Amino acid sequence: MTGPRLASGVWGVVATPFTNDLQVDERSLRRLVRHYADIGVTGLTVLGVFGEAAALDADERAAVLRAVVDEVDLPLTVGLTSLATAPGRQEATAVLAAAGDRVAAVMVQVNSPVVEIVVDHLDAISTSVDLPVVVQDYPVASGITIAIPALRMVVQTAARVAAVKAEAPPTPPAIAALSDLGVPVFGGLGGIGLLDELACGSAGAMTGFSYPEALLDCVAAHRSGGFPAARAVFAPWLPLVTFEQQARIALAIRKQCLVERGLIDHATVRPPAASLPDALRGPLRVQMAAAAQLRTGRPAV
Amino acid sequence: MTGPRLASGVWGVVATPFTNDLQVDERSLRRLVRHYADIGVTGLTVLGVFGEAAALDADERAAVLRAVVDEVDLPLTVGLTSLATAPGRQEATAVLAAAGDRVAAVMVQVNSPVVEIVVDHLDAISTSVDLPVVVQDYPVASGITIAIPALRMVVQTAARVAAVKAEAPPTPPAIAALSDLGVPVFGGLGGIGLLDELACGSAGAMTGFSYPEALLDCVAAHRSGGFPAARAVFAPWLPLVTFEQQARIALAIRKQCLVERGLIDHATVRPPAASLPDALRGPLRVQMAAAAQLRTGRPAV
Amino acid sequence: MTGPRLASGVWGVVATPFTNDLQVDERSLRRLVRHYADIGVTGLTVLGVFGEAAALDADERAAVLRAVVDEVDLPLTVGLTSLATAPGRQEATAVLAAAGDRVAAVMVQVNSPVVEIVVDHLDAISTSVDLPVVVQDYPVASGITIAIPALRMVVQTAARVAAVKAEAPPTPPAIAALSDLGVPVFGGLGGIGLLDELACGSAGAMTGFSYPEALLDCVAAHRSGGFPAARAVFAPWLPLVTFEQQARIALAIRKQCLVERGLIDHATVRPPAASLPDALRGPLRVQMAAAAQLRTGRPAV
Amino acid sequence: MTGPRLASGVWGVVATPFTNDLQVDERSLRRLVRHYADIGVTGLTVLGVFGEAAALDADERAAVLRAVVDEVDLPLTVGLTSLATAPGRQEATAVLAAAGDRVAAVMVQVNSPVVEIVVDHLDAISTSVDLPVVVQDYPVASGITIAIPALRMVVQTAARVAAVKAEAPPTPPAIAALSDLGVPVFGGLGGIGLLDELACGSAGAMTGFSYPEALLDCVAAHRSGGFPAARAVFAPWLPLVTFEQQARIALAIRKQCLVERGLIDHATVRPPAASLPDALRGPLRVQMAAAAQLRTGRPAV
Repeated sequence: MTGPRLASGVWGVVATPFTNDLQVDERSLRRLVRHYADIGVTGLTVLGVFGEAAALDADERAAVLRAVVDEVDLPLTVGLTSLATAPGRQEATAVLAAAGDRVAAVMVQVNSPVVEIVVDHLDAISTSVDLPVVVQDYPVASGITIAIPALRMVVQTAARVAAVKAEAPPTPPAIAALSDLGVPVFGGLGGIGLLDELACGSAGAMTGFSYPEALLDCVAAHRSGGFPAARAVFAPWLPLVTFEQQARIALAIRKQCLVERGLIDHATVRPPAASLPDALRGPLRVQMAAAAQLRTGRPAV
Repeated sequence: MTGPRLASGVWGVVATPFTNDLQVDERSLRRLVRHYADIGVTGLTVLGVFGEAAALDADERAAVLRAVVDEVDLPLTVGLTSLATAPGRQEATAVLAAAGDRVAAVMVQVNSPVVEIVVDHLDAISTSVDLPVVVQDYPVASGITIAIPALRMVVQTAARVAAVKAEAPPTPPAIAALSDLGVPVFGGLGGIGLLDELACGSAGAMTGFSYPEALLDCVAAHRSGGFPAARAVFAPWLPLVTFEQQARIALAIRKQCLVERGLIDHATVRPPAASLPDALRGPLRVQMAAAAQLRTGRPAV
Repeated sequence: MTGPRLASGVWGVVATPFTNDLQVDERSLRRLVRHYADIGVTGLTVLGVFGEAAALDADERAAVLRAVVDEVDLPLTVGLTSLATAPGRQEATAVLAAAGDRVAAVMVQVNSPVVEIVVDHLDAISTSVDLPVVVQDYPVASGITIAIPALRMVVQTAARVAAVKAEAPPTPPAIAALSDLGVPVFGGLGGIGLLDELACGSAGAMTGFSYPEALLDCVAAHRSGGFPAARAVFAPWLPLVTFEQQARIALAIRKQCLVERGLIDHATVRPPAASLPDALRGPLRVQMAAAAQLRTGRPAV
Repeated sequence: MTGPRLASGVWGVVATPFTNDLQVDERSLRRLVRHYADIGVTGLTVLGVFGEAAALDADERAAVLRAVVDEVDLPLTVGLTSLATAPGRQEATAVLAAAGDRVAAVMVQVNSPVVEIVVDHLDAISTSVDLPVVVQDYPVASGITIAIPALRMVVQTAARVAAVKAEAPPTPPAIAALSDLGVPVFGGLGGIGLLDELACGSAGAMTGFSYPEALLDCVAAHRSGGFPAARAVFAPWLPLVTFEQQARIALAIRKQCLVERGLIDHATVRPPAASLPDALRGPLRVQMAAAAQLRTGRPAV
């Protein structure tokens, strides 16, 4: 457990926009990451679960990475989809080829409840590409549940852990349990637990939300004014955060919200991901109209 | 699908307080339901999952009911724990014996994905005690997942459905899909989806939250001013709502919040329910301090 | 971990027969347990998951117990349905009232992955009725998964463990890991792993199977001739064992097999348990016809 | 639903052997598939779940395919790992490049409970490589549960279904429900339900078992003598079948059994797959010693 850590703050999780016929929409992708850069995120997380990486083929993944690298100068955390070592290594090699020294870390999911297996997996991948790893604990995506003490041991033992992304609810006590290891721990899950995660020692947020400005404002307010300040800033956004973070349909909701903001052109998701229920189109517009009224401390862009 | 419906609004889900040695704390229970009555809830839901009914023996359940009936005049929805018909019928009979004509309905969990099985179950119980039923769709507690069209059919077919309690996320589209049946549908889950559930046609909330005043204000605001008004009222409370509604530990958190408010004496829960992680004690106090600053439209009591 | 242990051998898990209108069929119940006694089982397990205890009300449970006690002289292990302590204690008290000194032990399900919680639960129940407990590890019924080292610790720590019923697949390595504790460990699951469980040190079988004679012959053969002898005896029965032990419908299949043998009158199960798929009626008769040809070393009765 | 179907009989599911340092062991792989050819299987299934395809990188997958194509003349069903269309299509293209006209079908997992999504997925893949598909219903691997009527509709609607591999227990009623569609349905799961699957109309077995000769004999006996003949042939093998088919550790057990038979050199599996529990080494040798005594109707090779 040595080497560089991810900088704290907000890492924007990048959705992969598609055209109406489900091809990667590079123009929208560039607009989206440009927006992230303009508002001042610390870095970007690309090809994660919410980037629908598991629904992209290898060529598409490389194209997404190259477009992001070309469009913005931000450091990148790049997700790997596979839970096994050999294909994970191959993915990591492709990441390096496409994004080179812009990759701050590859993000690898916890693939077993057994410490040794996870550590060997992380180390094999980080060694193969000479990059640190972000350890993602996300049972909904991986199907793997690891106990907190085992996750602690993983972070302490693996050679090059740049950060942890804690997405196994309840996240605040998990983050508290990892917060003394000298490794930044980020919350995800659309920011639904952001306030409590910060209160428990998180380094910030690594997630998607249709108004990432609010995540930035919240983290900044927490730094300067602690929980009360962060709460004051973030509470008005929680109606939209909870709306977006609905089980199984969160991706479809968030993409439609990004369309409403004009950040991407189409809200299409690749099956078998669920699309937006028609019943939510009206409530979504009402939510977005209310959100548009909220001020943020960031420059309008 | 005939007969009386539950009145819309807020039904307070009553926690069962325990002493430090895990006996039912009737004094705290009376204080808690008295508070609910004073702030003007529509009715109370007793012996539900968050009332730890599954951890009470039959004598304790009867004692809880009798205390509530004695303390307040509110109509009651009373939860049944069993998923099978014969013991469910026996529970319902005991409910009737303890609470008599104060019972507005018994709440019965969906016990199968098969429409006929659920309908037979509901009808057998409602017939045996001559009471309508509230149909609770709560997979985390029951282990049963029913498709929305099947749940619609259940509501249309069962003889005496007084209401539905929709707690299978994502709840807003589920509520929208049931909202044209002439049966009130209530959200639960600590109020985390309340705004969107109201926007999708819910009749209100049937849940626990340490500040039920906020649920009342939100529902009232929605009636008078629609989503924008409800949003303005409820957003400041969402930091506490999301804090309470953490997976597996929500009960322990909420009980501690109720202690902080002085509504019950002890936050003890009966095992195997999880107790409050120590790491959350600090954040909880900070949350409650912030909540105490918030104004509600209800009289302080 | 002191006190009497269950005798090794075969404990017959007793189905609760119902009439066609789903009332407890005491006449069939008596015939079934009489058969068990005649073929020489070590004891009976009553009111377990396969006895549909969760679908019986308290009066029915008591009636079942009294009928069994009245019909046969065998020692009884009696299952408790609840996973919580207070209602479990109440069930145990009712067991004692109905079956008195014929109760060898009450069977209690593992109710938590946490050692202390399980131990407190077991001890509270065994103390309340002054009876030892059989610890049942059955995740399909309980929803609880406990690690093997934690289960070992439970068995070593709890005050009065008479036996373990190991039903979390894979059972053979679990049984091997518990076999040095001086506490008998029984396999269940319809006998599907019986040969390997015996090879790993099990004390026998505690399960239902439509030909329990085969379980007896297998355990006896293992005692006298080890694995090869047990294998020779049990292999011809495995087609029926695997047929019966089908996920979700095992109970309905087994009851129909008992009907075919004439041991009970009706195969009805109480909903929401699944009933026999029509497509299996033909295969079931073919299976039973083949089984009827097999010789057992037990007297025909 | 047109076009060629898979021939009935036994399709051998090929394990991917590794050396002790977890590299693909091509020599063992060739020996294993040579054995399959010598004993007369209908075809081979390569790169399935039990072939650890998800733990192989793209180069390794191609190397495995090329070795199999080179070693034997059998028709091949080749598994795809991804549940999404774009990467699935890319995998299928690689399959075609490596195995060409030796590919009888690609095997695609059910990736949604929704008929239209599955059909679109199957059709997109079969169109892209001009190959029929085998539809694999295997919830333990995919995390997806589809209802039987929906699966029927998929088979009836998709353009080119060559077969179904039914591995969602209970499989016999599922196979019965699909058996009138004119599409062969194969059982899997190590052969544990083979007798009943044949009785319910299956076209044979598509699975791994350390003695595939027994699967062949069973299917042949069923053809000539129906259930009683198949039962007589297969019962002696069921002790080994049930031993191998243990949850989570089946792969490790089977590989060790193949080592004992001399068909592969090492039993290593790639993490995070579980390795063989030490406690089962003794029982495994005893099982294999007993199995070695059994006669099969196939030539010893």
